[in-house]
Amino acid sequence: MTALSRDGPQWTATMGLTPGLKVLLLEARDRIGGRSWSSNIGGYPFEMGGTWVHWAQPHVWREICRYNMRSALEVSPDYTSGRNSFALYTAGGKDAHELTHADEDALLISSIGKFFNVDGRQGQTLMPRPHDEFHNADVLACDDLTAADRLAQIQDELTGKEEAALKAWLLLMSGASLETSSFYEHLYWWSLCEHSYKGAVDFLIKYKFRDGQSAFALKFWNEALSTGNLHYIFNTPISSISDTPDLTAVTLTAGNVFKARKVISTVPLNVLSTITFSPPLSDLKAQAIATGHIQHTTKLHAEVTNADLRSWSVINPSSELVFAFGDGTTPAGNTHIVSFGANANHLEPELDIEDTKRALTDLTPMQIERLVFHN
Amino acid sequence: MTALSRDGPQWTATMGLTPGLKVLLLEARDRIGGRSWSSNIGGYPFEMGGTWVHWAQPHVWREICRYNMRSALEVSPDYTSGRNSFALYTAGGKDAHELTHADEDALLISSIGKFFNVDGRQGQTLMPRPHDEFHNADVLACDDLTAADRLAQIQDELTGKEEAALKAWLLLMSGASLETSSFYEHLYWWSLCEHSYKGAVDFLIKYKFRDGQSAFALKFWNEALSTGNLHYIFNTPISSISDTPDLTAVTLTAGNVFKARKVISTVPLNVLSTITFSPPLSDLKAQAIATGHIQHTTKLHAEVTNADLRSWSVINPSSELVFAFGDGTTPAGNTHIVSFGANANHLEPELDIEDTKRALTDLTPMQIERLVFHN
Repeated sequence: MTALSRDGPQWTATMGLTPGLKVLLLEARDRIGGRSWSSNIGGYPFEMGGTWVHWAQPHVWREICRYNMRSALEVSPDYTSGRNSFALYTAGGKDAHELTHADEDALLISSIGKFFNVDGRQGQTLMPRPHDEFHNADVLACDDLTAADRLAQIQDELTGKEEAALKAWLLLMSGASLETSSFYEHLYWWSLCEHSYKGAVDFLIKYKFRDGQSAFALKFWNEALSTGNLHYIFNTPISSISDTPDLTAVTLTAGNVFKARKVISTVPLNVLSTITFSPPLSDLKAQAIATGHIQHTTKLHAEVTNADLRSWSVINPSSELVFAFGDGTTPAGNTHIVSFGANANHLEPELDIEDTKRALTDLTPMQIERLVFHN
Repeated sequence: MTALSRDGPQWTATMGLTPGLKVLLLEARDRIGGRSWSSNIGGYPFEMGGTWVHWAQPHVWREICRYNMRSALEVSPDYTSGRNSFALYTAGGKDAHELTHADEDALLISSIGKFFNVDGRQGQTLMPRPHDEFHNADVLACDDLTAADRLAQIQDELTGKEEAALKAWLLLMSGASLETSSFYEHLYWWSLCEHSYKGAVDFLIKYKFRDGQSAFALKFWNEALSTGNLHYIFNTPISSISDTPDLTAVTLTAGNVFKARKVISTVPLNVLSTITFSPPLSDLKAQAIATGHIQHTTKLHAEVTNADLRSWSVINPSSELVFAFGDGTTPAGNTHIVSFGANANHLEPELDIEDTKRALTDLTPMQIERLVFHN
């Protein structure tokens, strides 16, 4: 969160933070970037949160251009050598299939297409403009439908392989469960991806920063520091925020109080319950805070000696890790595997490291050299 | 062009114009917006230059969000009533075909696909990343090939209808001629449109501002004015710009001289030859200025009483107007037709108004109530 001192104009929705303002950044963590950060281990950036960027993410792309980083991207998948195949588990994980990546694309295209084809045009008439969500007001009814409800509607149209691929995709996208994620939210993402599987892959999981998200965050940081107007304190959790007519007071858990003309709070939803607001937040916000995010994605990196896995991907909707694929080669010549789990079958990597390794090696045999994750 | 006074910090590539700077805008025209402006006639915005916007235009979209205009868009085509057909002229304009819009899409998809399929993947391997143009250096060779050269390579693969559709598309995209436009430039735009016809239509000619481009430009203008730091003079052509170590002097054709610490010149290429620079611009820039833009698109609007033309479109690569379609309904209940011509067969609408009307009515009979254009 950010506090502005009294000696400058205020933040506005159109102008942002007017340069020239003195800003104090109070950050509970020991670094910038929130969940979008990368950790450099052995000369390789492991992405701990937000990873992939694309020119179809307009606001992110504007900043990438601002910092002249358009050539600083690399592509995640590499099918040029090694196993070059797609493993699919069906029948509750009992049946294993070794398929081609073309099969993988075909399965996801056909099954996702059926999932969104509520209007005969794969959702295009329901949400034609992703950035103007309610352009067609009929779309609101989709929020009464869970992903599980919609899956039940098309059950008879799906092959067993399609159903497995689709379930894993929906769990990857929501990070939650089929019963708790809204069909509306899935449709929103689908619309952002131009209502196409190619769009979803390109926009969401193809291009990443060669040097990691933190290399990007540092550009913001260094620019802000260069103004001479930014002051900051890390490792500074907040206990309360109180508004008075003239000033806003921010009290740290350590007891200190900072006062400012304006406070911009970027505290994450799941942390807001630890902070007392005066006056209290609205009932609706309090409800949202009590509910918290439905998404508790597990993101687990493995550095493995198996070079052939660089071109491998897997889907297993019954596993604690529903999606995994080769995402890079480390300076040591090892393969970097990135994998994702959802609430539906939740894995906390640090709880039992042997269990965590088993979740990976059950997908395919692999020689794990290193696991990287973040709570 | 914009001049900064001495009493503030300078413009930088990362910070832009630091707020707080005093800025003097010297504008040769009587309005803001350059070629992107709309003229409100009879309560209807006729777009005189840049028209269509999309969230896949990242920088424009960022500004649309900034001004909360995401719901201020409307869709150009409307196939819900009227003639609902596509007219195609082949054989040098001698043969007329009345087809469906589905036929139109199919013809353009197949022919454009063949045009860009130099690598078996419709150009995707040659220019995978539009914002990192030279990512694959092989793409540079495409600049030695004209659109006409590439067309000759695939001549035997095209049907007569495909050839007509493709030629008109290339003339619409370049605004020039097949012999003067570079295959590289066409490929660049194709890559920006996700290497797909759907992308090209959606990103380039589908969504426009309900109230016209000038409604958008006024948002910038009003924000700049609200800072109190913007001064401006319209109808102010420049005769020379001289750099000295401390200041830059801008001399108007009227004789007045303004001096500033920094000058940002946004003078269009075709106007630069009228301005003397001291020190002179580089030889390469001088060459570019002497060559000028190869593109002299004719954009001609017609307001016609024929309601059935709202859902009509036409392609005639041999006409002075290679592309036209119904683009809206005016408050008077008339149909707005927008049409485009290129250098290849150039039309200057104001030279002979009867000739201009004939170019339109040769495409299909129509009762013209009003012509709108801009030199």
